[in-house]
Amino acid sequence: MAKQERAVRTRDALIGSAAEIFDREGYTVASLTAISSLAGVSNGALHFHFASKAALAEAVEAAAVLRLADVTGAAPRPGERRLQALVDATHRLAAALRADVVLRAGFHLCGESARPPQEDLRERWRAWVEEAVRRAEAAGELRPGVAVADVVAAVVAATVGLEVLGARDTRWLSAATVTRLWRLLLPTLVPSAPAPDLAPEGSRPL
Amino acid sequence: MAKQERAVRTRDALIGSAAEIFDREGYTVASLTAISSLAGVSNGALHFHFASKAALAEAVEAAAVLRLADVTGAAPRPGERRLQALVDATHRLAAALRADVVLRAGFHLCGESARPPQEDLRERWRAWVEEAVRRAEAAGELRPGVAVADVVAAVVAATVGLEVLGARDTRWLSAATVTRLWRLLLPTLVPSAPAPDLAPEGSRPL
Repeated sequence: MAKQERAVRTRDALIGSAAEIFDREGYTVASLTAISSLAGVSNGALHFHFASKAALAEAVEAAAVLRLADVTGAAPRPGERRLQALVDATHRLAAALRADVVLRAGFHLCGESARPPQEDLRERWRAWVEEAVRRAEAAGELRPGVAVADVVAAVVAATVGLEVLGARDTRWLSAATVTRLWRLLLPTLVPSAPAPDLAPEGSRPL
Repeated sequence: MAKQERAVRTRDALIGSAAEIFDREGYTVASLTAISSLAGVSNGALHFHFASKAALAEAVEAAAVLRLADVTGAAPRPGERRLQALVDATHRLAAALRADVVLRAGFHLCGESARPPQEDLRERWRAWVEEAVRRAEAAGELRPGVAVADVVAAVVAATVGLEVLGARDTRWLSAATVTRLWRLLLPTLVPSAPAPDLAPEGSRPL
């Protein structure tokens, strides 16, 4: 049991180190030796858990999928508007991309030309945004004439842009920047502009 | 003279091939042999023009800077509104990213973790957007209370998002997608919403 626990911890440490090195150096350049050394384990231990760098990348993506589920999966509060839930999720995504190297590496792996992603985080995020906007529309929260596809395109393009720009300069992932986006988008989305009951800066607590 | 001309053509062909291979495989994986062979020249000819892969990448970036200047540099038409010029430039950028592998590779090189860009295309685009929005504000085209920084953040994040998403699926770079963004943004930006004299789909001819 203690042995199993240690194995799980070693595996997690390797995933974290791989994310760190992929994030810093890119998938192609990343060396398995750098990853095992950062995790404080031997090359042999790394190979016991992961047959190849590709297997490590898949494990990072799988871990990032779970982190993304934390971002998108918050249960709606009673009476909460669907659009506010979407605003809040974009704030949580930006905060998680700032703080969590596994999520960041998972998104970054989508952009590697040399390696098609197994789990396309950006596509998962897009699908979740689409569902959220459809629900907002079904709940009558969208201004008549606003097309779901327009909202999805704008929100996904802008958030993926923040993710990519934030890799070089984290100010793009600040709450202030996310709030800027929503200050511009929300007045168009909702029936009465400005909408006093929607908070572009996110509702507290996130 | 003919010899000089041939040298210029070979250099241009190498830049085009390098852009093609960087775009397809990423900078790190790209091999000089693949680049020279795609350009139809010998490895020796490649090394005569470019001392290293890094030198080739810098040449691709420099060429991409000129293509970006074509996108942003169109002379304003008489009586044209500044915001319409910005809308049109985003449409030209998306069209150029679809069609022009040198511009695409130049942007893509900004995202390579393994190599800090010499010419950061995304930063150049951001600086141009900021100038364009400031001019729109100075011309009294922005609705009172709309902050320049909000508009810059939204437009840059969304266009960089389209660039990145478009690398895997060119529908993100279609005129229809760019139009979707502006349909949502323009009503908030201008004093009277909806603004009948601004065309989210771009004014013709681009």
